Amino acid sequence: MRPIRVVVPFKLNCAKSRLSSVLSSEEREELALAMLEDVIDAVAGLGRVSILLKDPLPEVGIFDRLLQSRSGIESEIEILECPRELDPALNSMIEAQERRGWPADLLIAMADLPQMRPSDLKELVRTPGDVVIVPGRGGGTNLILIRDPKFRVSYYGLSFLKHLQMAEDLGLSAGVFESFRCGSDIDEPSDLVEVLIHGQGRTPELLKKFGFELSGKREKVRADCLR
Amino acid sequence: MRPIRVVVPFKLNCAKSRLSSVLSSEEREELALAMLEDVIDAVAGLGRVSILLKDPLPEVGIFDRLLQSRSGIESEIEILECPRELDPALNSMIEAQERRGWPADLLIAMADLPQMRPSDLKELVRTPGDVVIVPGRGGGTNLILIRDPKFRVSYYGLSFLKHLQMAEDLGLSAGVFESFRCGSDIDEPSDLVEVLIHGQGRTPELLKKFGFELSGKREKVRADCLR
Repeated sequence: MRPIRVVVPFKLNCAKSRLSSVLSSEEREELALAMLEDVIDAVAGLGRVSILLKDPLPEVGIFDRLLQSRSGIESEIEILECPRELDPALNSMIEAQERRGWPADLLIAMADLPQMRPSDLKELVRTPGDVVIVPGRGGGTNLILIRDPKFRVSYYGLSFLKHLQMAEDLGLSAGVFESFRCGSDIDEPSDLVEVLIHGQGRTPELLKKFGFELSGKREKVRADCLR
Repeated sequence: MRPIRVVVPFKLNCAKSRLSSVLSSEEREELALAMLEDVIDAVAGLGRVSILLKDPLPEVGIFDRLLQSRSGIESEIEILECPRELDPALNSMIEAQERRGWPADLLIAMADLPQMRPSDLKELVRTPGDVVIVPGRGGGTNLILIRDPKFRVSYYGLSFLKHLQMAEDLGLSAGVFESFRCGSDIDEPSDLVEVLIHGQGRTPELLKKFGFELSGKREKVRADCLR
């Protein structure tokens, strides 16, 4: 099996704007960082991790705690800055990898999957396919493992279907790894309850610090009322 | 491995009331029946299936098509009527099974899981545990496989956590089978988009007949605008 390189695109400016009805801008930044940490902890065992930033680092040292508390694996985490939009930024990484003879498969993981566990990732990388797509709620692609250099990503819109179609157009085999925890990206207030129920890392801790708690009722929509 | 008996609780009266903003009462009944058919097709390979009705059959022959079109497995499907609430109805089935020496494990499957596939179920029954719980969105239990006669179900509220706790209290081992497709129960307008993307049976067909279609945009909340 080829080594894996993990890429996690990350944005701090205006992070998680759809949570603005229940969290302040500072809280959303804190949440975005906590989720990133949980994602890093889930993927770190797979290989080298690149955090891909669109904006320049807003303050020196914002990732210090993240890196320091992971001193054993610190050397396996790098921070890259790329001012381009998500698709061209990621596709240029794929092309660079292709030019270097594809030394490692690429796993692109979204930064808002705090429920994901290392065991989920191990199963994901065992799934056969030239690409393996992990669907998110609403037609998104939460993770994608690219084993063939011809593939290009196309996020936004119904990217799950777009990625399946692209694989077909290129004559590549596409695997689908379907997972409740990997499929639960955190975008909206109703998503927060999932973190409180299924999360295990920093993110549920932070939400509790913010005052969120489970009401005891099944909450599908108005998790905002839990605070 | 012990045989499995599948129980699918089903309600036609006032079915799927949380979809009333986008579907008429007749359409919701049609949808409930289509989802039940897709669930039956997903679980039918596992063993005998009992459809558990709370209300008396509203009209003679409403399940005729369902049974006739499954003539090969018709003898494996039975319809039971039980006027009790969900928990007592199911727990009395568990007790009856216990009195008979537990001839088969019980798999309780909700009737609103139209994306579920036979391969998902095969994986579920391979999961170890005295009980195996399949979480749904918002803290629910979408399926539960009961291998120990001591267990009792407790739906409503955060039943996923309640079932985990109950297993612990009884000294039973609990497995969690986490699955995107099995975790996607259909209750609200925003859930319908998942069926259009990931469903393969009668339900996506029916939704298309009703005029729903994918907008091309990622839709997490307002799937009603798709119609």
